Amino acid sequence: MPRYEDIAVGDSASFAKTVSESDIYTFAGVTGDLNPAHIDEEYARGTMFKGRIAHGMLGAGFISAVLGTRLPGPGTIYLSQELRFKAPVRIGDTATATCKVTAKDDSKRRLTIETVVVNQDGKVIIDGAAVVMLPAEAG
Amino acid sequence: MPRYEDIAVGDSASFAKTVSESDIYTFAGVTGDLNPAHIDEEYARGTMFKGRIAHGMLGAGFISAVLGTRLPGPGTIYLSQELRFKAPVRIGDTATATCKVTAKDDSKRRLTIETVVVNQDGKVIIDGAAVVMLPAEAG
Amino acid sequence: MPRYEDIAVGDSASFAKTVSESDIYTFAGVTGDLNPAHIDEEYARGTMFKGRIAHGMLGAGFISAVLGTRLPGPGTIYLSQELRFKAPVRIGDTATATCKVTAKDDSKRRLTIETVVVNQDGKVIIDGAAVVMLPAEAG
Amino acid sequence: MPRYEDIAVGDSASFAKTVSESDIYTFAGVTGDLNPAHIDEEYARGTMFKGRIAHGMLGAGFISAVLGTRLPGPGTIYLSQELRFKAPVRIGDTATATCKVTAKDDSKRRLTIETVVVNQDGKVIIDGAAVVMLPAEAG
Repeated sequence: MPRYEDIAVGDSASFAKTVSESDIYTFAGVTGDLNPAHIDEEYARGTMFKGRIAHGMLGAGFISAVLGTRLPGPGTIYLSQELRFKAPVRIGDTATATCKVTAKDDSKRRLTIETVVVNQDGKVIIDGAAVVMLPAEAG
Repeated sequence: MPRYEDIAVGDSASFAKTVSESDIYTFAGVTGDLNPAHIDEEYARGTMFKGRIAHGMLGAGFISAVLGTRLPGPGTIYLSQELRFKAPVRIGDTATATCKVTAKDDSKRRLTIETVVVNQDGKVIIDGAAVVMLPAEAG
Repeated sequence: MPRYEDIAVGDSASFAKTVSESDIYTFAGVTGDLNPAHIDEEYARGTMFKGRIAHGMLGAGFISAVLGTRLPGPGTIYLSQELRFKAPVRIGDTATATCKVTAKDDSKRRLTIETVVVNQDGKVIIDGAAVVMLPAEAG
Repeated sequence: MPRYEDIAVGDSASFAKTVSESDIYTFAGVTGDLNPAHIDEEYARGTMFKGRIAHGMLGAGFISAVLGTRLPGPGTIYLSQELRFKAPVRIGDTATATCKVTAKDDSKRRLTIETVVVNQDGKVIIDGAAVVMLPAEAG
């Protein structure tokens, strides 16, 4: 389990996944988000994105993957997340979520974390920030 | 497809799902968020939540389901989302995401939407707000 | 919840999905229908369809999606369904299920609904009819 | 591959599965049928069924499993299916689909098959009939 004291401003970690059609379809089924932009290629061709795209929240899930498994890791209490959706993820794109500690609040054992998801060309898909807490008992 | 002009401040819509163990496991597999808080009952019993809990982003996915399929619905461009995670969702809890239009910006065709997820007891799981845009071509 | 009284002969609603390989494989796993026509490309190349095809019941599931979520919607009691399988759905085809009310039986609160699934070229995949009931308590 | 000539009126075969919550949820996700009767326990408690039930088409999928893998088996062309939904399947029920050949049409190489799904108490969930064809090339 991670220790609050061992984490420094500037620390970062990442998680990357090539987003498959089955990822999008499974995500649609679990969340109930059957927006045709995600599951109907005929419809999606007529949109500004010219084809099916992944759910923004799937990319946000990759941020959660970093926070919950790498930095800070298990024990992390997820307090808040801001997400700005900047560009779409298409089937076959590789999304990399990177989380970087930007501030520590020692009295509350809280970390502010910059959260960015980029695609294989370095284009920003999502930017934003998270606030997490590391309880003493997990330290 | 929804028309920006037909949506009024105060409009709201909801989506509800009883969260199953399989939802949590599938979400973990698709997003890569294998935090033991979600998939390791032995570990989770020792946490402040006393058992496995759903990913916060799964609840956020229910918000996305409302925005992408009900209000505003297909054609919606998701610009941003703020999420404050207030309480956990356990296996068997029923989460209801409700989205309510709180402001319109006619010049940009943008809506500000209050986004709240509650459990079966009315306890707030997530609160926050989204900003979405409805393009003229979808109008 | 839908009200029987608010539904008129001629009302219709649709649901569309581009059928992915993962849909077919997931459907096979859940239903146990491991017919090689659906999951064995080597076998399927030797059939009259020249490749793997979706389960007919997957297309029928899209009919159920319309009936259970759009028209009539939640509360609907599904009494019967006739299905005639007219053409296959291949991986990547977009299937659109459309349900249209063709008759009302007020004494029994029953609706007869024409149920058709077509592909992206308008070719009929499934045709048939459903009978559903809307209980008074759901009205 | 089955041979038309080897199948006799009266032949029968079955497939049984205990229906899990994850079966219902996965089926909902793949087909798009998010009717709250299937995925929202709070809603479902207020219905005549007093809790979540499986999709009727999931039981129909078990019929398809018998036809496509056991009797007649691979190579079967599914022409039509009548389904009468008689009783619900709840989480944990064991559904057994049985298919029995009731008529042969040698000129068209077609079989009429009685299709019944029962639960663990022998209660009929679905009854109906299918018509299938066995092409000469599969014989």
